[in-house]
Amino acid sequence: MEVITKINEMQTRVLSVRDRKKSIGFVPTMGALHDGHISLIRSAREENDELVVSIYLNPTQFDNSDDFDKYPRQLNKDIEIIRKENADVIFTPCTEEMYPDGFCTHVTQDKLTDALCGGVRPGHFNGVTTIVTKLFNIIDPDRAYFGQKDYQQSAIIKRLVADMNMDVDIRVCPTVREEDGLALSSRNKRLSLEDRKDALCIHGSLQKAGAMFASNVRDAKDIVEEMTSVIKKTKQARIDYISIVNADTLEDLSFINGRALAAVAVWIGNTRLIDNTILE
Amino acid sequence: MEVITKINEMQTRVLSVRDRKKSIGFVPTMGALHDGHISLIRSAREENDELVVSIYLNPTQFDNSDDFDKYPRQLNKDIEIIRKENADVIFTPCTEEMYPDGFCTHVTQDKLTDALCGGVRPGHFNGVTTIVTKLFNIIDPDRAYFGQKDYQQSAIIKRLVADMNMDVDIRVCPTVREEDGLALSSRNKRLSLEDRKDALCIHGSLQKAGAMFASNVRDAKDIVEEMTSVIKKTKQARIDYISIVNADTLEDLSFINGRALAAVAVWIGNTRLIDNTILE
Repeated sequence: MEVITKINEMQTRVLSVRDRKKSIGFVPTMGALHDGHISLIRSAREENDELVVSIYLNPTQFDNSDDFDKYPRQLNKDIEIIRKENADVIFTPCTEEMYPDGFCTHVTQDKLTDALCGGVRPGHFNGVTTIVTKLFNIIDPDRAYFGQKDYQQSAIIKRLVADMNMDVDIRVCPTVREEDGLALSSRNKRLSLEDRKDALCIHGSLQKAGAMFASNVRDAKDIVEEMTSVIKKTKQARIDYISIVNADTLEDLSFINGRALAAVAVWIGNTRLIDNTILE
Repeated sequence: MEVITKINEMQTRVLSVRDRKKSIGFVPTMGALHDGHISLIRSAREENDELVVSIYLNPTQFDNSDDFDKYPRQLNKDIEIIRKENADVIFTPCTEEMYPDGFCTHVTQDKLTDALCGGVRPGHFNGVTTIVTKLFNIIDPDRAYFGQKDYQQSAIIKRLVADMNMDVDIRVCPTVREEDGLALSSRNKRLSLEDRKDALCIHGSLQKAGAMFASNVRDAKDIVEEMTSVIKKTKQARIDYISIVNADTLEDLSFINGRALAAVAVWIGNTRLIDNTILE
């Protein structure tokens, strides 16, 4: 396995893979890997000849410098995890390499980026669309892998690829959870033991939504109210948003009559966690 | 020569060219071809195995709907011109193909886009960077060709390609002029006989700038003043801007101490024309 930090070295490697007519699978990460990432890496390993995993903590997608500062970092541990999964390349550039002096181009999106996390994290998704465009151009993958926990991110990236006519297949893999239901997230490493218990209310609220939908409740307001009351039972949890949206357009729904998404963002102490479930 | 209107057909053709390890040269145009375009097409023909010319009048780069409505259109004539130059493909998609329902991604730039035409044509260059990104992704060229008359456009596209890590070589070809010095432009077709004479003041002002620079004038304000007085002798000409800028950053200069650009935009009747010259 090769660890590459320079863009031109990565591009040279990609050209040689292309020359040999091999397919490229790509898993972009910000490091602090957990079993959710590993499930993406395993899917990518299975479906492609060459597997590239990137580790890059992209500053431009953090709307909050405190969140960036506190984001867990464990490069050497991550490299060992990826090595065990038989990746071919880890691409881990520095910020001077990705955003050199004079950098001034941005990829932005409207509509999908206004909903859910976009409403409460200004600029976040423009940071995502810009860095993903760069990484896709450098790595030229056939397939790129994202987790369903970041549902809005994958919807935005699917739109990006369609709008910009990029030839990349976006694969969205199921959310990996702890046994008690908590969605895996790099930010979970920040939770205290107490926080860890409190965080369960998130999954609890989504289970509630799923159960109501299964018993034919279709009024979004009723479901959101019940989800809210589940979370409010945990006194340390502060709701950022609870939304029921159209699963394609991410537009708020008052009545569910197609594929919908129940999505939640909650602060547990100083850590903001998100999760979602499809209602269909 | 093949005329392709569908993105997926264009992509299929590109994949087959790539499979044969042939190089692709690309000349993007908005049609209404003149000898300036032909010089780009000939350079591209010479330097590449496969030559793709696009004809697409991109609505999102017009800041003024009247300018868009009045822009000359002559598709059949353009196809014949390109055929004579031995292009392999004309790519001429419709707007529903380029901007389908739900389209919401934009490529934007700051810094370079604020200067010169960017200051007086809001949104223009964001339309350019977005459509060029799409065309580059569809056609995957080794080299793309632009004219020096649109100097700011080529500076912005060079920056776009560098910032987004696109693997395209941007070639900028010299401005082609009429015998009397008027830079060729599709918009020249709109000039009346009277306008055509008036338009000569533009080249006159640039010649003045060149002569002053040659006789060691380095104060930008002095040069701009003289250029202004050249243009003001033509009563029907209305100055949009006259600027002396750093040729790389496009930042306004008060004193010329490196490679500089003298750039002019002037309304002749209802037609806005631009031109420039390098001072070095």
